[in-house]
Amino acid sequence: MSSERIIYMPLGGAGEIGMNAYVYGYGEPGKERLILVDLGVTFPDMDSTPGVDLIFPDVQWLAERRDRLEAIFITHAHEDHVGAVAQFHEDLGAPIYARAFTANIARRKMTEKGYTEKSVRTVSAWPEVTEVGPFKVGFVPISHSIPESSGLVIDTPKGRLVHSGDFKVDHDPVVGEAFDEELWASLAEPGVQALMCDSTNVFNAHEGRSESSLSSDIEGLIAGAKGMVVATTFASNVARVKTLAEAGKRAGRSICLLGRAMRRMIEAAVETGVLKEFPKTVSPEDAKEIPRENVMLIVTGSQGERRAASAQLAQGKYQGITMKEGDMFLFSSKTIPGNERGVIRIINQFSEMGVDVVDDSSGLYHVSGHANRPDLEKLHDLVKPHFVVPMHGEHRHLREHVKISKSKGLRGVLAPNGTMVDLTGERAEVAEYVETGRTYLDGSVKIGALDGVVRDRIRMALNGHVMVNVILDEDDDPLGEPWCEIKGLPEEGRSRAPLLDVLEEDLSQFMGRAGSKTLTDDDKLEEGLRKVTRQSAQNEIGKRPEVTVIISRLSA
Amino acid sequence: MSSERIIYMPLGGAGEIGMNAYVYGYGEPGKERLILVDLGVTFPDMDSTPGVDLIFPDVQWLAERRDRLEAIFITHAHEDHVGAVAQFHEDLGAPIYARAFTANIARRKMTEKGYTEKSVRTVSAWPEVTEVGPFKVGFVPISHSIPESSGLVIDTPKGRLVHSGDFKVDHDPVVGEAFDEELWASLAEPGVQALMCDSTNVFNAHEGRSESSLSSDIEGLIAGAKGMVVATTFASNVARVKTLAEAGKRAGRSICLLGRAMRRMIEAAVETGVLKEFPKTVSPEDAKEIPRENVMLIVTGSQGERRAASAQLAQGKYQGITMKEGDMFLFSSKTIPGNERGVIRIINQFSEMGVDVVDDSSGLYHVSGHANRPDLEKLHDLVKPHFVVPMHGEHRHLREHVKISKSKGLRGVLAPNGTMVDLTGERAEVAEYVETGRTYLDGSVKIGALDGVVRDRIRMALNGHVMVNVILDEDDDPLGEPWCEIKGLPEEGRSRAPLLDVLEEDLSQFMGRAGSKTLTDDDKLEEGLRKVTRQSAQNEIGKRPEVTVIISRLSA
Repeated sequence: MSSERIIYMPLGGAGEIGMNAYVYGYGEPGKERLILVDLGVTFPDMDSTPGVDLIFPDVQWLAERRDRLEAIFITHAHEDHVGAVAQFHEDLGAPIYARAFTANIARRKMTEKGYTEKSVRTVSAWPEVTEVGPFKVGFVPISHSIPESSGLVIDTPKGRLVHSGDFKVDHDPVVGEAFDEELWASLAEPGVQALMCDSTNVFNAHEGRSESSLSSDIEGLIAGAKGMVVATTFASNVARVKTLAEAGKRAGRSICLLGRAMRRMIEAAVETGVLKEFPKTVSPEDAKEIPRENVMLIVTGSQGERRAASAQLAQGKYQGITMKEGDMFLFSSKTIPGNERGVIRIINQFSEMGVDVVDDSSGLYHVSGHANRPDLEKLHDLVKPHFVVPMHGEHRHLREHVKISKSKGLRGVLAPNGTMVDLTGERAEVAEYVETGRTYLDGSVKIGALDGVVRDRIRMALNGHVMVNVILDEDDDPLGEPWCEIKGLPEEGRSRAPLLDVLEEDLSQFMGRAGSKTLTDDDKLEEGLRKVTRQSAQNEIGKRPEVTVIISRLSA
Repeated sequence: MSSERIIYMPLGGAGEIGMNAYVYGYGEPGKERLILVDLGVTFPDMDSTPGVDLIFPDVQWLAERRDRLEAIFITHAHEDHVGAVAQFHEDLGAPIYARAFTANIARRKMTEKGYTEKSVRTVSAWPEVTEVGPFKVGFVPISHSIPESSGLVIDTPKGRLVHSGDFKVDHDPVVGEAFDEELWASLAEPGVQALMCDSTNVFNAHEGRSESSLSSDIEGLIAGAKGMVVATTFASNVARVKTLAEAGKRAGRSICLLGRAMRRMIEAAVETGVLKEFPKTVSPEDAKEIPRENVMLIVTGSQGERRAASAQLAQGKYQGITMKEGDMFLFSSKTIPGNERGVIRIINQFSEMGVDVVDDSSGLYHVSGHANRPDLEKLHDLVKPHFVVPMHGEHRHLREHVKISKSKGLRGVLAPNGTMVDLTGERAEVAEYVETGRTYLDGSVKIGALDGVVRDRIRMALNGHVMVNVILDEDDDPLGEPWCEIKGLPEEGRSRAPLLDVLEEDLSQFMGRAGSKTLTDDDKLEEGLRKVTRQSAQNEIGKRPEVTVIISRLSA
């Protein structure tokens, strides 16, 4: 028996819902030829990543092995799958394969970063396959919420792997191909060694509903509205944007798309021919001139993002358009856990304006793009894999997905980010644990999650910041008194005197007591000044602030 | 007709769920005698209030009229109703009336802050009334989730007001008095001018369920568990703690309470005799010695709070107790919107440990303490008020509650925080809009929400912080070059040189170009240095940081 093996290792996506990046390898241990499936982003939040613009998986492991990386395959055009392709082009270099619509989006990202488009290669759907190194990879159409979503068939010399991609079982998905049970069953014929499977909705016990089931309820809602109707959904949920626009049109309204991301996504879908018969839209300028009961806006910002169209409308105005009493705002979306505060803020702002807000609590105006538990089990049944390897989930989702696999007699494999699994044999074995992490895009710079930059920001936010300044002369004697600046701290505390005065008084006393051993040693002096500052603040305001000490020494 | 009027004005609680504080007044306009109902807190979050410890309503309006304030009445002992009584004792001074259990909690708060207990006065339930100024106030038992929860009857010379307090319609509430329909109907007999009514669950269309309905399902769950069982709920949900403890006991387990807040609450309930027959508990030390399948811990931290027992257990250990594979963790609670990130973090940590997490998604292990829409309508029907004034809700809840009142032919009055309503006549009229806000407890200091302290913290967290230091000599000439310190910023950017070097180079050039008009003027110099720093950082790292400029001038 040859020693070649099949390996699988998530760098992202198996520990969170987002920043998908799955490595597959085939070859002798340590010399496997590699492919990467998806290279996406996830989004920051104030709790853990203040000031950060985007979050990527840490691809250092792969970058160090770029000579072994054959290609990158992108399953579909959602940001959590395609968002980071351009960001790591220099580090990874490999060609990027995708179907036409996804490739269109990937090319836009490449050119935006100043790269040529030619690394992005358009491929057709299964049964066409792309041969790279020891792999033959085919894009198998699967229903989701964006055009040309695909699972992958990854054939290796030691067996077939199936990567589900994001999917739901939808026989009438409005855009993209319907779920084709026969096609998926046919993939199982030669035997499937492992199914890497979406886990997003594993906790939902009900069969999923079709995108097409929303259409008449949404139309009814719009038809019953008296003022302007504004609906929001994910910009990249092309299916929903179409469902909304067509329902609005049937209800006799002119459709206007607001928000750059949404307009670009629809533009790309029309350009590549995957979105046909999208209703004619009007510009924001024209929308303003139409009686409000004849207008429907479809806008970005379903997650309460501060700068998106819906948040701007809730604050008063977006592109000259204002909402008012009697208008209706529809969240045709689910609030992603963690985004509730932003969404609720918007709902209350609309409430203050007298705008009626409708959300998905009735279950009538939103369906998920992901497979629920019975639908996951259907895919397991069709593909009949030797292993089920849950992906696209937090740890709790992966674990639950392993559980339900096992309960049906399948071999479930728990492989969170950084777990390299050998999938070659009867039993899946952990080959190696690789340190994984996150890379932040911060302004224009990529920083590591553990660099301490974000930690320092969080500390300043929690504790405030005191800057202490001392000057020493040529003889290491203090020149004048130490003084402070504060930021993010109250101006006065217990003693009702200015906090600055209290701190400076304590610091002066410290300098007066300090001997030459301290005064001549920057580290000792800094340490002493910091300690006094923190203690003094603790006494005065009950808080130990971050302290930056600035020592200036005049040279002779 | 005399010119005396009845006024109502929320200072907190009608614009958020939390920090309840409702002012009632009676008398000639501008000379009304006042009472305050409830004085609670709400909790900070990283998004909007980083580093803050607690949030209170701004009671300045009331403090400025303290000579007109007769008394403070506390409806029940939840933190959002009683939490701030001691914090504003100096500003308001008025006596505090409450039933025994609530008074016990209020007294603990007073003594903790070093005040005497004697401002807190224990009163009995309706039909006893307390006469203060023109008001007669009675505490009417109502079912909620903590002992002795009460609504208030507030009789004035021009009519009766009813303040619901927090409530649900529960005929078997486990602790506290059952909802007594006859009693509430009897209050309506003399006619009720206005019902101030809880709005928390107005969006829930189903009839609420009794606390007692949980008992057998929770017992079944515990009985089926093989390892240790840990359950969390709000520390102050005394009813649930009892439900959980009794179910655990019936399932043959020793009960251990973990978390200071929970132990104190149960202690107070036992001390005042409102909690009888609570199972005997064991200490954490003893719990460790009992086989894990015979132990049940009831712990604080249902909202994912970082320092609470559940978060500590999820990270490994609390008071020497560790959870492990095969144990079960039960959230007998609902996640309050905005707390999802923290709760999900804990669930994933438990998942990594192999602990099975059960939450309320089945609907079996948690019921709300607040009235749903049909139950709100029941209270409206019983009390038959001239006005329904929704309170205890965000704006969206108040507005919806007004809507459902109107749809049933009642006069709904929308009165968010700061809206002073004249409730005397046929029609409710806005008497005045008063500026309201929030007061933060930050360490040991109270600061205003608009003081800029928190704004600066958020800015440092989002943008990072650069400190610029320059020294000028006696002749206003720069002494050496300007130099910088950075905090919360990447160490290098576009040019791959240290960010500090890039900033200092640009600042040096600026100083070289600066004329004496700039060098002699601190404001001008600071403004110039800040501008250069921000521009330089923008070029280098794509971010405009917060800048603190420190100018030192040596005097002759």
